[in-house]
Amino acid sequence: MSRRRGRDRAREAAASPQRKVDYRNLKNPFPPMNAFTEDRIEALHEASMTVLEELGIKVLLPEARRLFRAGGARVDETSEMVFIGRDMVEAALSTAPKAIQLRAGARHRDLELKLGNLAFQPGAGAPHATDLVRGRRPGSLRDFQEMVKITQSYDVLHMVPPLVEAQDIPMHLRHYAMTETELLLSDKMPFLYSRGTPQVMDGFEMIREFRGLSEEEFQAESHCYTIINTNSPRVIDMPMAQGLIDFARAGQMSVVTPFTLMGAMAPITVAGAMALSHAEALSAITLTQLAKPGAPVCYGTFTSNVDMKSGAPAFGTPEHFSASLVAGQLARRVGLPWRCAGGSAANVNDAQAANETQFGLWGCLMAGASVIIHSAGWLEGGLTVSYEKIITDLEVLQMVGELCAGTPATDADIALDALREVQPSGHFFGATHTMERFQDQFYEPVVADWSNFGTWTERGSVDANHRATGVWQRVVDNFQPPQHDPDRVDALKSFIARRTEQGGAAPES
Amino acid sequence: MSRRRGRDRAREAAASPQRKVDYRNLKNPFPPMNAFTEDRIEALHEASMTVLEELGIKVLLPEARRLFRAGGARVDETSEMVFIGRDMVEAALSTAPKAIQLRAGARHRDLELKLGNLAFQPGAGAPHATDLVRGRRPGSLRDFQEMVKITQSYDVLHMVPPLVEAQDIPMHLRHYAMTETELLLSDKMPFLYSRGTPQVMDGFEMIREFRGLSEEEFQAESHCYTIINTNSPRVIDMPMAQGLIDFARAGQMSVVTPFTLMGAMAPITVAGAMALSHAEALSAITLTQLAKPGAPVCYGTFTSNVDMKSGAPAFGTPEHFSASLVAGQLARRVGLPWRCAGGSAANVNDAQAANETQFGLWGCLMAGASVIIHSAGWLEGGLTVSYEKIITDLEVLQMVGELCAGTPATDADIALDALREVQPSGHFFGATHTMERFQDQFYEPVVADWSNFGTWTERGSVDANHRATGVWQRVVDNFQPPQHDPDRVDALKSFIARRTEQGGAAPES
Repeated sequence: MSRRRGRDRAREAAASPQRKVDYRNLKNPFPPMNAFTEDRIEALHEASMTVLEELGIKVLLPEARRLFRAGGARVDETSEMVFIGRDMVEAALSTAPKAIQLRAGARHRDLELKLGNLAFQPGAGAPHATDLVRGRRPGSLRDFQEMVKITQSYDVLHMVPPLVEAQDIPMHLRHYAMTETELLLSDKMPFLYSRGTPQVMDGFEMIREFRGLSEEEFQAESHCYTIINTNSPRVIDMPMAQGLIDFARAGQMSVVTPFTLMGAMAPITVAGAMALSHAEALSAITLTQLAKPGAPVCYGTFTSNVDMKSGAPAFGTPEHFSASLVAGQLARRVGLPWRCAGGSAANVNDAQAANETQFGLWGCLMAGASVIIHSAGWLEGGLTVSYEKIITDLEVLQMVGELCAGTPATDADIALDALREVQPSGHFFGATHTMERFQDQFYEPVVADWSNFGTWTERGSVDANHRATGVWQRVVDNFQPPQHDPDRVDALKSFIARRTEQGGAAPES
Repeated sequence: MSRRRGRDRAREAAASPQRKVDYRNLKNPFPPMNAFTEDRIEALHEASMTVLEELGIKVLLPEARRLFRAGGARVDETSEMVFIGRDMVEAALSTAPKAIQLRAGARHRDLELKLGNLAFQPGAGAPHATDLVRGRRPGSLRDFQEMVKITQSYDVLHMVPPLVEAQDIPMHLRHYAMTETELLLSDKMPFLYSRGTPQVMDGFEMIREFRGLSEEEFQAESHCYTIINTNSPRVIDMPMAQGLIDFARAGQMSVVTPFTLMGAMAPITVAGAMALSHAEALSAITLTQLAKPGAPVCYGTFTSNVDMKSGAPAFGTPEHFSASLVAGQLARRVGLPWRCAGGSAANVNDAQAANETQFGLWGCLMAGASVIIHSAGWLEGGLTVSYEKIITDLEVLQMVGELCAGTPATDADIALDALREVQPSGHFFGATHTMERFQDQFYEPVVADWSNFGTWTERGSVDANHRATGVWQRVVDNFQPPQHDPDRVDALKSFIARRTEQGGAAPES
């Protein structure tokens, strides 16, 4: 075969993607990086213990204070302050599971959260949505639905977060619409907001019924999860404490995430902010274990810095990166699966946005995070999720997924035969070794365009952001939802209709 | 002091940058990552030995073949093939220095290249330049001059590469103009092209005279460097062989860089491409040591993949990342300082460009590269260097520089006092701990804009790419060249005038 023909054949056959790499169950292949020496991690942990024991945490929910008191904490009911002994923390860490089974809508979507495993979520909780067609606007149910479709369509996005707020749905009904969307349009792990017990119980019931589980089966494993943000510094508010208790008692996973911006709601140093974050996380984890020993709870942090000129939060900074590393060291010390987060403060999906999100991502990866939140699409420090940025960021996540799969190094890969076959100044396009592998050897990009400048110009000089528009539009237009039992779909809709008629469930605070 | 006043004072004082972090002598803080097990690295090294011993390297320069023969290689003069025994390679590796002192124009610009140290170069060797004001065009001397000014202005760019070709200067005179630019506008380590002995000798003389060195002083340390690309597969061409010999004999550093694109001029597998790259690198390194034992030579690779649909090269891919890791393992095996490279195939400074360049960068960082080339500005797989992309990429390099500096973890940093001072739901803006540190605690960005969407919109919705235009324009407009002895400047100009009158020096091939 001539070189030219070999090359042509390779091009032709490569026209349809052949490569199949499993992005569903990732192991983190990156060596963990330490920011502090072990003795300074111990000193930091000790400082967190001092915060819990001497300074205390303000816990607004009486039921939570009652649990803390029953568990041995000193509680001042007047000030609502709870002082938690290190023995209580140690006891909680001894019962909190080191691995958490997450049961999704299909078995191949199940996840195991533990140290060493790796899962990704796109950006979560944004009040606004943006795309290049419709512009920036308050998030709507349609935006949430479309973003769930995109999330469902890429294996490398492992869990469904509350991507954007469906602001067109009133608060007392929004949880129905969001949970219905998650259940009908995705078979990945769904999220529930902790906005008070009534909404949480609605969510549990919808998921349990839709999955066809008995109460016992539901409680045996996590079928949904919530995110718990402490109110830093040192406050656990009403709905957060309720969420911790309700999820723990139902055997569902809480992801504990102090949001500690250095210089604002946390000390200006990485070490100080992490001392606070660690103390708050351990207080929340302790509460889950007091509510139900063995309840699934994920350690977590979201620690970055602010611009001291303006007070504006920043993400994907060196300080954010270092804080992630420290969090990883602390998570390994307590032995729990943990969440970390990327993100960007950019206002548009440009080079800054890409660089900040990826820089933050590498901090999380080298910190050994079990699940990385806001890893795609998050702009404006979380005020907006961009459709296009979900696409350009998940390209990076897929490339990380490729690295998780490893690189083969058999004798056949070392390719001495090919090196013998191709003469000096020759090329390998038509080599036997190449022909046997060209269809699926390389990662094929979602949105990257590798064409040369002339071709790219002829095609209209479209940048990655605008190419991403085409990508998400095709995904949304061609979306096929997972198959569901029609009776369960009907039952879900009936439940929502009934609860809506009954007045829904307002958020609590 | 009230919280409000504390915050205001912090804002005011932070308005002028105070933070001083030394980006000049970086140590790589990232734990090295292995792609292959040690035994597979040995198998790969053995395969490279087989390539050198049995398949051979085609060496076009008779003088180089003579050196190889004198060193014990089997040489076939008809085919110009050189077969290099492993004993010769081992001998070369035993004399090649493990640490290379690079003498720049000022002592604080000196570098030591060795395993564990880290240096960056912006993109090199592009035929085109681009910026948002003047568009994409063939590179000119003015472009080269302006890019050298930018390179000089940021400590995190450690060496001056041939950023763009000065295509408006004829080839027989271009090296005068480029070397004059490097010497007059920068005091960082200058680069010389290896385009034949006459040009190289001109370059040596210009640098030696301008630095005021005797021949002996010049040869004692590297005062300049060259990049040697083998012609993969398995060819060392005339000017490259000449460069290896000339630089070695003069005690100046060669950076050996097989450019092995998987599926094109190298096998389609990472392992196969690296077997070829390693063999070629070792052949070139061997030649330097045959020319002068102990000559400074930097191991290197530039291995990425092509798009098998189009044959177009790709950069910042998972395969590129993995190849960098393997190169790092091989470099550690041979113990030499080594160069690695980032890059992007994007045609414009967009999210793809940022993501590819940063992804490739992390491959180099986790591979433990001593010097990372094309780490800022490189577009179109090296056909263009973008002024704006130099700026947006060097933001990432500076953030890496911050990580190299480490994160303090003293008791004062852990900040128990601040945690005591600020009550639950309070904030740390006005805390004593914050006030003592706010002026220089955080990295201050070059081009990132952390303002909120409203402010950013009021300021014209300028993306990072367009903000970068303002940054490089200010750098170029306000540039102050290093101080030079006027007599040496005159001598340099006289030398160039004389050599120009004599007809210059055409490149050899």
